[in-house]
Amino acid sequence: MQTREFFVSAPGKVILHGEHSVVHGKVALAVSLNLRTFLRLQSTSSGEVHINLPNIDTFLSWEITALQPLLAGCKAEQGGVKELDADLLKRLREFTGISEDSTDTRSMAVLAFLYMYLSVFAESLASITVSVWSELPTGAGLGSSAAYNVCLSAALLSARGNISYPLTPQQESARWSKEEMELINRWAFMGEKIIHGNPSVVDNAVGTWGGFLRYHAGNITPLSWVPILRILLTNTKVPRSTKVLVSGVKDKINKFPSVMKPVLESVSAVSCACEQTLTEMAAHGPSAELYNILEELIDINQHHLNVMGVGHSSLDTLCRVTLARGLHSKLTGAGGGETDTSVIQSTVEELKACGFDCWETSIGAPGVQQHSSAALSQDIPKILHSY
Amino acid sequence: MQTREFFVSAPGKVILHGEHSVVHGKVALAVSLNLRTFLRLQSTSSGEVHINLPNIDTFLSWEITALQPLLAGCKAEQGGVKELDADLLKRLREFTGISEDSTDTRSMAVLAFLYMYLSVFAESLASITVSVWSELPTGAGLGSSAAYNVCLSAALLSARGNISYPLTPQQESARWSKEEMELINRWAFMGEKIIHGNPSVVDNAVGTWGGFLRYHAGNITPLSWVPILRILLTNTKVPRSTKVLVSGVKDKINKFPSVMKPVLESVSAVSCACEQTLTEMAAHGPSAELYNILEELIDINQHHLNVMGVGHSSLDTLCRVTLARGLHSKLTGAGGGETDTSVIQSTVEELKACGFDCWETSIGAPGVQQHSSAALSQDIPKILHSY
Repeated sequence: MQTREFFVSAPGKVILHGEHSVVHGKVALAVSLNLRTFLRLQSTSSGEVHINLPNIDTFLSWEITALQPLLAGCKAEQGGVKELDADLLKRLREFTGISEDSTDTRSMAVLAFLYMYLSVFAESLASITVSVWSELPTGAGLGSSAAYNVCLSAALLSARGNISYPLTPQQESARWSKEEMELINRWAFMGEKIIHGNPSVVDNAVGTWGGFLRYHAGNITPLSWVPILRILLTNTKVPRSTKVLVSGVKDKINKFPSVMKPVLESVSAVSCACEQTLTEMAAHGPSAELYNILEELIDINQHHLNVMGVGHSSLDTLCRVTLARGLHSKLTGAGGGETDTSVIQSTVEELKACGFDCWETSIGAPGVQQHSSAALSQDIPKILHSY
Repeated sequence: MQTREFFVSAPGKVILHGEHSVVHGKVALAVSLNLRTFLRLQSTSSGEVHINLPNIDTFLSWEITALQPLLAGCKAEQGGVKELDADLLKRLREFTGISEDSTDTRSMAVLAFLYMYLSVFAESLASITVSVWSELPTGAGLGSSAAYNVCLSAALLSARGNISYPLTPQQESARWSKEEMELINRWAFMGEKIIHGNPSVVDNAVGTWGGFLRYHAGNITPLSWVPILRILLTNTKVPRSTKVLVSGVKDKINKFPSVMKPVLESVSAVSCACEQTLTEMAAHGPSAELYNILEELIDINQHHLNVMGVGHSSLDTLCRVTLARGLHSKLTGAGGGETDTSVIQSTVEELKACGFDCWETSIGAPGVQQHSSAALSQDIPKILHSY
């Protein structure tokens, strides 16, 4: 261990365009959401491993000597990532008493942590305390599990010495090298597999790389420099099942193939047009005209989502409330534009009156980072230090 | 003249699918609207021609001797239709004092009437009184001018003896033969040209043939037997300019060609899927499942219209109010389905409270017909007789 404590963070994600058509081989555009998950890793000499997850009231610890036998038969991976070790996962489930069919957030977070900790530190289990706190709501499709896994992966790999500590004493925040981030991303995906079984590769990629990512036929391409855009994120809190929605879209495509296939084409083209507009923003600076194009594309995409049948009357309410003030809304909540603070404030008030949660945040922020304690807003180290 | 008086009627129209994409070479589906225009033609011995249009407070008459000189230089057309006679139209404008740039409803209705009367009766001007009364609102895109022109055309051609009187003494309503209807349609289109300059060929075709018509690249194909569907027609009374809307759609296609062209494809496919469903309804009888498909297609089309930017917040209000009761709405107001009378009544009340006009009517009704006086609801002959 090279340091007593350090901080990392990773962003959430929103799919800007193509959330459903990506399943059918079309281009999607994902972007980091600057609601972040923060992790503090502390080296200790307690002979114990602690995990503190205050958002979900989970505070657990284990004696290292009790964990050691779980590694019997495991090969040390030296920081390389292989396939998920199903035997180790099975032993962990038995050890923690988390059954095969359990999918609750706490159990999954604990399993992912223990799996990654044991795999990364297999050669020599270290005494550490890991505390994670997130600005992201869970289960809202905003990549909270991926941000958690990216933070765990970066922190554990750094603490183990598989990757560097990028932060120099003068810096407030720093990022890892491309190769190191690829390793972080691969380990984070392992955590995603544990939590989701068959996860999208997009969430952990956004958490790692940040910014805007083009996703097409399994390939992810980070866009070169793009603007950070202010958004008002709204959670209608209407529960939804991704599985049910995805299969509903599939049914609709089978029912009306000649009607739906061109819609998927159009969504793909919306993603590409958005990418092109962001690239222009990067080259020539943002302008009212380019913001208008982004807004038009968001409106078109939202209408297409309604065609696919994944809209909801609460989203129409949201769009109506925001459009009345010249703001543009979409499912999972991303919209760009320069707007007066007073307009934002009155919009937030009306949306809260509708029973929705609101966050003023931004999209396009950096991916996983190491932070100095001083760089974080006062509350965050306080929260992370209290465990 | 074979009879002292007779009655004809023609329906309005709605475009069920493809209203904007038809401009770009895609398939549209038009259907008759059972809000009808009624005409009474009476042979007189007054030596005068009277036209009474109570809906637009227009009651005019001319001495036949005063009209006769307008025909100087015209060739009698024997019921055949040639190109619009620009000289005759010019003389008519001078005679009536209606200037070149005048486009008001009254002036245009009078010009169309006089032009058709003089052309059809060129060989021997007859004393007649024509009274027209309509259930259709004017200027709402519901084909009111076409229904007027179709009635005029059928009545004048019958009175002149160019086509038959199809009604036999035992019948309440009757239709003309296919060849006669083609002639009615061509003369009605002449009236449309006078009123609109560059009219769509759809409106007079629907007024003539009734039922459902497929329109593609200038060709109109009436669908064979199709069901008559109950609808609730709503007029939001938001004024719109077809020209401005059409050019807005064109601009959007030029701005986002790769996004918009697939949307036009999809609208075309919606028209075809709707046609197929109506054909199935004709073959196997209507079912809840088939009604649901029609409703789904109407919703998809409405979302596509929003993508094209021709939606309006008043239409969203309308869709919300009706959807809350399980009814499906679209621009220009057509939606099918079997619904409880009490649901309809409460919906109508809420829509009227929004400031909208509502009609319970049907689509798919017959085109131009001759009626016995007894067959018409009591009020209509009364209205038509009072002038």
